[in-house]
Amino acid sequence: MSIEMLPVHGIGEITRGADLAGMIGSAVELCDRDIVVVTQKVVSKAEGAMVRIDATDPLSHKPVVEAESVRILRRRGDLVISETKHGFVCANAGIDLSNVESGWAALLPEDPDRSARRIRDGLRGRFDVRVGVIVSDTFGRPWRRGVVDVAIGCAGLVPVLDLRGSTDAYGRTLQVTEVALVDELAAAAELVMGKATGVPAAVIRGGDPSWFLGDDDRGGVVADVVRHPSDDLFR
Amino acid sequence: MSIEMLPVHGIGEITRGADLAGMIGSAVELCDRDIVVVTQKVVSKAEGAMVRIDATDPLSHKPVVEAESVRILRRRGDLVISETKHGFVCANAGIDLSNVESGWAALLPEDPDRSARRIRDGLRGRFDVRVGVIVSDTFGRPWRRGVVDVAIGCAGLVPVLDLRGSTDAYGRTLQVTEVALVDELAAAAELVMGKATGVPAAVIRGGDPSWFLGDDDRGGVVADVVRHPSDDLFR
Repeated sequence: MSIEMLPVHGIGEITRGADLAGMIGSAVELCDRDIVVVTQKVVSKAEGAMVRIDATDPLSHKPVVEAESVRILRRRGDLVISETKHGFVCANAGIDLSNVESGWAALLPEDPDRSARRIRDGLRGRFDVRVGVIVSDTFGRPWRRGVVDVAIGCAGLVPVLDLRGSTDAYGRTLQVTEVALVDELAAAAELVMGKATGVPAAVIRGGDPSWFLGDDDRGGVVADVVRHPSDDLFR
Repeated sequence: MSIEMLPVHGIGEITRGADLAGMIGSAVELCDRDIVVVTQKVVSKAEGAMVRIDATDPLSHKPVVEAESVRILRRRGDLVISETKHGFVCANAGIDLSNVESGWAALLPEDPDRSARRIRDGLRGRFDVRVGVIVSDTFGRPWRRGVVDVAIGCAGLVPVLDLRGSTDAYGRTLQVTEVALVDELAAAAELVMGKATGVPAAVIRGGDPSWFLGDDDRGGVVADVVRHPSDDLFR
């Protein structure tokens, strides 16, 4: 089994109300069990999750960060690490000024799992194939430098692979039983998208059949990947 | 540009003193600018970074965890989140009982960047190609469920891409300037390796030329990815 990541070129500028599934579907021919990874930025633009800020003031998005945070974990200088209403812990409540028009800031989508389902439904209607969809965003991590892309929403995919009961090559029950599949897929997709090149989507081809869900989605990133506070040693 | 991940099958059982580069090289034909990702487990086995434990006592590795930790961040029940001498923050100081013989525990390699350089040198000697090498391990994360693979050592690769000065599609200077390239590559490779299948290595083909270093390696995961405590809000 090999897996391939392909950048999706030619999607074009996304404005409020854009038919993202249609634009992706026009830019790439999808096969059964492809996984489409779409960056948060274009999802937020299509959904109109944008707010006006003062382009002349580099800190004018800061009140928006406070408003979008349900809890502040850390502050240092202008940097705020906070928890969003979705339960994501990230810098600046996920608010981002890159790759948006001057004078605007992009918020996180209201419900990124629903965003992913909507794109999945649109693609399935067009191609009559079973596809997975991930909405990805770029998060920092404690203890390690640099950012990586993670999933903030998904559809048609098992968010976390449950390996309980599996055994290793020696017949020993695995210690590690939950693999954050959608986060690994989001990180992989970033490798062909880049930050500066304006490629807002990628296709991952060749994924294992066990990664895909049937038509009745269960769960998503918010339900399955966000760690419950009672289970979290760093909240 | 598309990127492909290929599992490396047929490496065989790794014992102390094994020539990992030779075994990988016999199992797969490498091309220029391939990236070879090798799991920590086989590197530790080849380097003899293993300790005897009592196979009848499920907690007999716990004293080893304490010995391999320079600082304990959190404890809950049997779980210890600690910092290793390398500066990695992870569960159980990276000590792992999966995919090792009963009665043994695998420690992290002494210097995983050096391990990666050694494998890289061996592969370059055999194939006369420029390759990157990553030693990967499986870490949990705060705030998000499930584990992902990250890099604990690398050679021949830029560990963290520095995008300072780059601009987005609107000409705005990027907010996010450092991408943890080797962690995204490690996560991508895990997708074709799995936890239970015993595939200890993968090849990533098609990476951007800018990811590769010349012959004089600079830095590595410990120097470049481990966040300095003064720069870390969660230590």
